[in-house]
Amino acid sequence: MELLKQRILREGVNLGHGILKVDSFINHQVDPALMLAVGGALAARFAHLGANKIVTAEISGIAPALTTGLALGIPVVYARKSKPVTMHPNTMTASAPSHTKGVMTELMVSPEFLGPRDHVLIIDDFLARGETIRALVSLVSRSGAQLMGIGAVIEKRFEGGRTSLADLGVPIETLAVITSMDNGKIEME
Amino acid sequence: MELLKQRILREGVNLGHGILKVDSFINHQVDPALMLAVGGALAARFAHLGANKIVTAEISGIAPALTTGLALGIPVVYARKSKPVTMHPNTMTASAPSHTKGVMTELMVSPEFLGPRDHVLIIDDFLARGETIRALVSLVSRSGAQLMGIGAVIEKRFEGGRTSLADLGVPIETLAVITSMDNGKIEME
Repeated sequence: MELLKQRILREGVNLGHGILKVDSFINHQVDPALMLAVGGALAARFAHLGANKIVTAEISGIAPALTTGLALGIPVVYARKSKPVTMHPNTMTASAPSHTKGVMTELMVSPEFLGPRDHVLIIDDFLARGETIRALVSLVSRSGAQLMGIGAVIEKRFEGGRTSLADLGVPIETLAVITSMDNGKIEME
Repeated sequence: MELLKQRILREGVNLGHGILKVDSFINHQVDPALMLAVGGALAARFAHLGANKIVTAEISGIAPALTTGLALGIPVVYARKSKPVTMHPNTMTASAPSHTKGVMTELMVSPEFLGPRDHVLIIDDFLARGETIRALVSLVSRSGAQLMGIGAVIEKRFEGGRTSLADLGVPIETLAVITSMDNGKIEME
C-alpha cells in the first residue's frame, strides 16, 4: 500500500533493536483517513473468505480492526488486557510478551462474543515475531471459532512472524513489509 | 441519537452500582457501522468549533474518537495508560480512577502530538463522574492547547460528570443520556 509505505518512510523512526516508532499516525496519534484506507485495503484482500468477525488485541489493533470491520460490515472483538468488572466470569485467556513494554500481557476474550459459529479474521497493527497474533489464534481456537486469515498493517519480516505462523495454513496479508532495520535504516519490500 | 438509545435498551445490561455493560457493541465487541454513525453525530455537533485535533483515552475511547476524527478530517491522539518504549521521555501525565477496574490509572500524552497550536475536542465512550475526562482536560491544558468541547457516546447523568465539568465553559455533547439505573432499570432522557 503505497500511501502507507510513504508515510512510514517520512514519519517512521528507527529506534534500534528492531523497534519502529510510528506514533505520529498509528500508535499514539492516529490518522483516521489513512486508517480508513488501511481498513479498505485489508478488507479487499480478505473479502472472498466470508468472515463474520474480526478479532484484535487492545490497544493499537483497535483502529485498523475497526476500519477493516467497517469495510467488511462485520463486528470487531478486541481482546482485553485487564479485566473490567463488566466482563464475563468465564473469560478465555492467553499470554503474549510485549516487546515495546517489556512485560508479559494476558489477552482475554469473553465466550459471549466468540464461539463455534464464528469465522474469524485476526487483524493487528504489527506482525513482528507473531507472538501477540499467536495468542489471539489460541483464543480463537479455544472458542471453537474457525480462523480464516491474519492481517496486519506493518510487517517486520526480519523478525520471522510470518514464518512462525505458516503452519496455521491461512492467508497472511500485510500492507507494508519492512525487510531490514539494520544500521538505522528502514528498508521496505 | 435514536439508533444508539435503542441499542442500549436492547443490549445494555445494568450490573448494579451504576455500572452499565455495553460489551456487545462498545466495550469489548464493537459494531463498526454504529460507531461510524456515532462519530458522524458527534462531529455534526462540534463541526462549527474548528477543532484540529481529538484527544481520547485508551482503550474504549479509541473507536468513537476515530470515527469522529474521520468525519471531521482531523487526527486523534489517544492518551496511553502504560508507557511503551517508543514514547517521548518528557511525557505529560495525569491520573484518574477507573471505577470498572478499581484502580488509579495514569494517562500519558507526548508533547510531540499536543501543544499550543492545537484546538482540541475530548471524546470518550462514557461521561460518568467525569474523572477520566478531567484528567484529559488537565493534559490538554498543560500542553498549552485550547479545549474547544467535550463529547461522549453515553452519559450517566445521575453520576454528575456534566455538572462537575461545567466550570470549563465548553460545550458538552453526549448521544444517549441515562437518567437513572435504580432498581435494575435503564431510564433514558
